[in-house]
Amino acid sequence: MEIKVLHQVMEWNEDVSAEVRQTLSGHKVCMINVMGSPGTGKTSLITALIARLKNSFSIGVIEGDITGQIDAEKIAALGIPAVQLNTDGACHIEAMSIQHILPQFELDKLDVLFVENIGNLVCPAEFDIGENFRITILSIPEGDDKVAKYPLMFTDTDCLVLNKYDMLPYFEFDTERVKSDYRGVNPEGPLFAVSSRTGAGLDELTRHLESRIRACLA
Amino acid sequence: MEIKVLHQVMEWNEDVSAEVRQTLSGHKVCMINVMGSPGTGKTSLITALIARLKNSFSIGVIEGDITGQIDAEKIAALGIPAVQLNTDGACHIEAMSIQHILPQFELDKLDVLFVENIGNLVCPAEFDIGENFRITILSIPEGDDKVAKYPLMFTDTDCLVLNKYDMLPYFEFDTERVKSDYRGVNPEGPLFAVSSRTGAGLDELTRHLESRIRACLA
Repeated sequence: MEIKVLHQVMEWNEDVSAEVRQTLSGHKVCMINVMGSPGTGKTSLITALIARLKNSFSIGVIEGDITGQIDAEKIAALGIPAVQLNTDGACHIEAMSIQHILPQFELDKLDVLFVENIGNLVCPAEFDIGENFRITILSIPEGDDKVAKYPLMFTDTDCLVLNKYDMLPYFEFDTERVKSDYRGVNPEGPLFAVSSRTGAGLDELTRHLESRIRACLA
Repeated sequence: MEIKVLHQVMEWNEDVSAEVRQTLSGHKVCMINVMGSPGTGKTSLITALIARLKNSFSIGVIEGDITGQIDAEKIAALGIPAVQLNTDGACHIEAMSIQHILPQFELDKLDVLFVENIGNLVCPAEFDIGENFRITILSIPEGDDKVAKYPLMFTDTDCLVLNKYDMLPYFEFDTERVKSDYRGVNPEGPLFAVSSRTGAGLDELTRHLESRIRACLA
């Protein structure tokens, strides 16, 4: 029997992601798409990075969640402009939503816009939302086999952050295995081992991001 | 600061789950859909449950992964029939895949078929794969806000397992918050705090599952 192959319309998303990128470029805003599993520590890392970057850059945040506004409240409490994007069940953010939200920010006053994607190690990696670069977070408790099992998220990222690294003594986690798997799918991608809780490793990650952001805004 | 809430749009379709359930019923097989985030401990819990259930029931496992066969190898090493389902990028299992795989098992010799779904706290909850009941796992390192942020996975489940409970001293995790949120979306759903590693709580969970399986096979 002949198998019909049908395709979801992705061109619409592609076109819009280019428009989003153009809008951001016009206003000199660098957008960073932060991705990872539920509970990997996306909000905590963004919060820790805001503390280290806010003296150098004007920052805003789009908080993606299926429902609720728990995370946007945490960011807003820091005095940082935050918009909550509720996907109402959808497992990832699309560029169309970003395009819709951008006018909520005073873009000319912004340097950096973090987008916290839905907690999901699969779907968000498939969608270009118009970001300038991507951060993928993997936390120690999730285990050292995740790069092998969810490769796309680690292939199409500009930076891998191993979070909750202070928990290493309590879990069976082979950092060398992760490094090796990561090099296999993303030979040039940098890797940072950090703890958002203790602050370990954050200075090095911050220096890397500062350099990426300055290149983006130049 | 005021928080703006914007909404993304989505839609999806139905499947062959009723046929799968009929096939399983005809062969007196109880199928259990095991779901949770990447690294929440699905394979470890299934392994621990196999050790406790295998003297009472004949067990098989379908291992869902985007790519690779790491988990199916672990199950097969126990002498348990295991089939690896690779979704090649898809973020959930659908009933059509289960229907396609069932002939790989000697169903008349099987009592229990575990299906380990893709590591994902969002999409798998939307798909009835023909299972008789669902187990949702949440591990302590993921945090206590996950029921509030990913409600569907906890609403449409027959049993919530709090895994890695031995890690409670190392994380800020309010079990009462989880219980309260869970009761809010799933008033009748049982909850078990366990550690697949230490074995704590597994006897109680096993007794509950034995009772559910016997009711299913009756």
